[in-house]
Amino acid sequence: MNESIYNNYMNNFPIIGIGVASLDQSGKTLSVFYPVISCEGGSLNYDKSFVQLDALTTDRVTAIHDLEAMSGIDPILDALLKNMDERCKLVLCKLSEDKPIELVEEAYLKLHLLSYKIYQPNTLNLDNLFNILPNVAWTNHGPQELEEAKMNLAISHANHGSFEIKSMDKFPQLTDFVIPPQVRIADTSRVRLGAYLSEGTTIMHEGFVNFNAGTLGPAMIEGRISAGVVVGKNSDLGGGCSTMGTLSGGNNVRISIGENCLLGANSGLGIQLGNNCIVEAGLYLTAGATINVLDKNLKILRSVKAAELSGEDNLLFIRNSLSGALEARVNTKSVALNSSLHDNS
Amino acid sequence: MNESIYNNYMNNFPIIGIGVASLDQSGKTLSVFYPVISCEGGSLNYDKSFVQLDALTTDRVTAIHDLEAMSGIDPILDALLKNMDERCKLVLCKLSEDKPIELVEEAYLKLHLLSYKIYQPNTLNLDNLFNILPNVAWTNHGPQELEEAKMNLAISHANHGSFEIKSMDKFPQLTDFVIPPQVRIADTSRVRLGAYLSEGTTIMHEGFVNFNAGTLGPAMIEGRISAGVVVGKNSDLGGGCSTMGTLSGGNNVRISIGENCLLGANSGLGIQLGNNCIVEAGLYLTAGATINVLDKNLKILRSVKAAELSGEDNLLFIRNSLSGALEARVNTKSVALNSSLHDNS
Amino acid sequence: MNESIYNNYMNNFPIIGIGVASLDQSGKTLSVFYPVISCEGGSLNYDKSFVQLDALTTDRVTAIHDLEAMSGIDPILDALLKNMDERCKLVLCKLSEDKPIELVEEAYLKLHLLSYKIYQPNTLNLDNLFNILPNVAWTNHGPQELEEAKMNLAISHANHGSFEIKSMDKFPQLTDFVIPPQVRIADTSRVRLGAYLSEGTTIMHEGFVNFNAGTLGPAMIEGRISAGVVVGKNSDLGGGCSTMGTLSGGNNVRISIGENCLLGANSGLGIQLGNNCIVEAGLYLTAGATINVLDKNLKILRSVKAAELSGEDNLLFIRNSLSGALEARVNTKSVALNSSLHDNS
Repeated sequence: MNESIYNNYMNNFPIIGIGVASLDQSGKTLSVFYPVISCEGGSLNYDKSFVQLDALTTDRVTAIHDLEAMSGIDPILDALLKNMDERCKLVLCKLSEDKPIELVEEAYLKLHLLSYKIYQPNTLNLDNLFNILPNVAWTNHGPQELEEAKMNLAISHANHGSFEIKSMDKFPQLTDFVIPPQVRIADTSRVRLGAYLSEGTTIMHEGFVNFNAGTLGPAMIEGRISAGVVVGKNSDLGGGCSTMGTLSGGNNVRISIGENCLLGANSGLGIQLGNNCIVEAGLYLTAGATINVLDKNLKILRSVKAAELSGEDNLLFIRNSLSGALEARVNTKSVALNSSLHDNS
Repeated sequence: MNESIYNNYMNNFPIIGIGVASLDQSGKTLSVFYPVISCEGGSLNYDKSFVQLDALTTDRVTAIHDLEAMSGIDPILDALLKNMDERCKLVLCKLSEDKPIELVEEAYLKLHLLSYKIYQPNTLNLDNLFNILPNVAWTNHGPQELEEAKMNLAISHANHGSFEIKSMDKFPQLTDFVIPPQVRIADTSRVRLGAYLSEGTTIMHEGFVNFNAGTLGPAMIEGRISAGVVVGKNSDLGGGCSTMGTLSGGNNVRISIGENCLLGANSGLGIQLGNNCIVEAGLYLTAGATINVLDKNLKILRSVKAAELSGEDNLLFIRNSLSGALEARVNTKSVALNSSLHDNS
Repeated sequence: MNESIYNNYMNNFPIIGIGVASLDQSGKTLSVFYPVISCEGGSLNYDKSFVQLDALTTDRVTAIHDLEAMSGIDPILDALLKNMDERCKLVLCKLSEDKPIELVEEAYLKLHLLSYKIYQPNTLNLDNLFNILPNVAWTNHGPQELEEAKMNLAISHANHGSFEIKSMDKFPQLTDFVIPPQVRIADTSRVRLGAYLSEGTTIMHEGFVNFNAGTLGPAMIEGRISAGVVVGKNSDLGGGCSTMGTLSGGNNVRISIGENCLLGANSGLGIQLGNNCIVEAGLYLTAGATINVLDKNLKILRSVKAAELSGEDNLLFIRNSLSGALEARVNTKSVALNSSLHDNS
């Protein structure tokens, strides 16, 4: 599947995904892997099949029983068809419009739309996502319901089999479903499905990317990109830095980071950052903090809430090391990524 | 095994655990998995077996050779009996009283007692724990002595087998032994056996829970809970926040966090926190710091060591963004967990 | 392979490594595992073989076809020979002198030289390392090219096989290649091949060690050791602490930490630290910060750039909790590791 195709899509509904659902012991869907996604008006190279599939979709989710009709569409889909076991179901999921999520199949399709970079973060309706996604034991043999995993775990203690639970969560890790091109992810457990990672992005061990969040171009990510947060191209998130999220404990404003920015190691960000900005290592810039704005001669012009500097370019945020006051200075340094770290081919 | 039973236990010794020990090549015990635990006076549903077992326990640890006598007690134990290989031994471990740990079997039983939530953190005698636990290679085929793992690793390079070492440590990860109900753990490698996790707890990727530490109710954990630290219900530990431990490098006071508290992202805590307290994002509150206590009108009442505010309720700890001084203000915000993030069924 | 032998080596080129290369589907080398390394003048216990091998090395990298001639040199090499599949190649790599890296085989040999502790960090020429190393999907069945991994991942969705990608990176994790003696690594995904870890080192879950970096003696590492950074014996890096790197976003000065130092939790370091120094929890000490130097009576002696205190012993770095000013005080506390945490046998 050539992912660059997707960027040319018109991003228009209806959207159809064909994939394999993993089932629990009772036949309930735990997750869906969608290797094939088609949009109305998209430059799809298997038009015949698309028409056939469209005819099937009177319901939003259809179990496909005629597996043979699906062969030849896509090499990865072909491999799935050849290998499906009894815990799988081939499904077709149709999103007629961008409504709140009601089915596990729809939830996974929208997460794929983000990670395939068909839709940017914050452009899809993700209402109900947490309520619809089941809490799953992500094992090295696929998703399982927790009670089943518990029994398999016990058996593995007895026979030294290779059963492991790597996560108990509503979201899987990105690379169990989608492998973004030209990207490095040092520890794949740190990026959730639904992350939007652009080519030239490097996620180091301490980096983290939540669903519905990501990078719009090459970037060095050694800190945490919370849900809803987007990072502009050529920006650098230093080790352990934090971007305040809106899901839990944080504020209500959606954070974003412009281009050519640097969040220093162990820093934090509670406002939107424009282009060419730097937050000093170790400084947590909360929206409610009062901050001195300085001119080029380091003269204090005024004091404002940090939130009022939201989106402004060319600022350097530091804490004066002698007075202890927060300062927004004019940023004269340029941030440049080390190109040898971002040629991820 | 219905874990809710355990909360009704009288928490009285003697305590008996029946489990499977994993052995190294020489027959030495590397770890023990205890699916069945019984307490004197507990409302155990297999009284007959209990009596039989009790008769066996003249020694503290007994290898059970009559496997048939153990069948029918518990479905997980049954599965173990059916699958045991030559690197296993069925053992019964009896703790007559709460003494310092002398055997690997006892160490693992006490760690299970914590993670099954039979005992809360800091209520068991864990003396000698580090000395007794062997350093083990935790592989995807169970625990191995390091030299054996080294050879298996080499072979795996040659035949592209699936041998991996996920940890070289004295403690295993929690979910290789105990799966706590109604809990999410995004990255299971971040929680050690011996963690006490209450229902409704969510441990995000950046969260961490050591042994003998945990949560007493629903909680969002995106920071690090050090050994000995307990978090009250409905509290939120922000991304990358630190709770100072007593094992290494920190102070000597055992940290705790009350109910409805928020530790902001990248903050840190070196005192005990009462209820309804907030530590601002990015602020590390060490016990020895001098801090201004303010009234509701933000007038400074007095300056005290942070340690003197230990356990007080309704405090908001911030660093004044202009003066740089630490302040304890009256907290008027209420912290509430996002319920959709904590319905972990 | 007795690793203590290596510390006696004369560290003189030429250096020869014999190992197994993992190949992609087209036969290109993705990684090399070197169980056997020999130095000119080293007290090698298989002299006969060494002479034979030396004769082979007209080229820098030689594929060894006469596998029989290699048997009996080393038990791990023997195990490799017996188990090699068609995706392997036995190779001999000879480094005649310490030149910039030109081949994948050379890159891996130098990373092994560091992790076997034959060479300390910053003593080998690693030029071109990033350009030469391919970006690899590190799976639980060895390294694979990303497109191959993508297909295997899809199949695993269909048949619930045990295929996983744990990392997409140029560097593998240390313990997939080298198991350092007397070391604990709680989460092996956090230490890269090329890390130099001395006996008695414990890397906790939040610890991280990059290539060409490490510890010179017993140490507690709960923070991040960036590339090029070296930590002296008996030092303690607290949870989440940062050492500023030179590869990306940081400064140009190579950071180092002396003996008996403590970096507090969530602190950061942008200068070189001498012996017996403490950086307070939560304080990020950047090189450009102006800092008050105090005498034993806490009287301010002078204000200097932090960089000017580089390498000085017995300093305690704090931020005054009332004035907000950075201070370098005389450190009167001694840092001592908890010995029970570092007896890693």
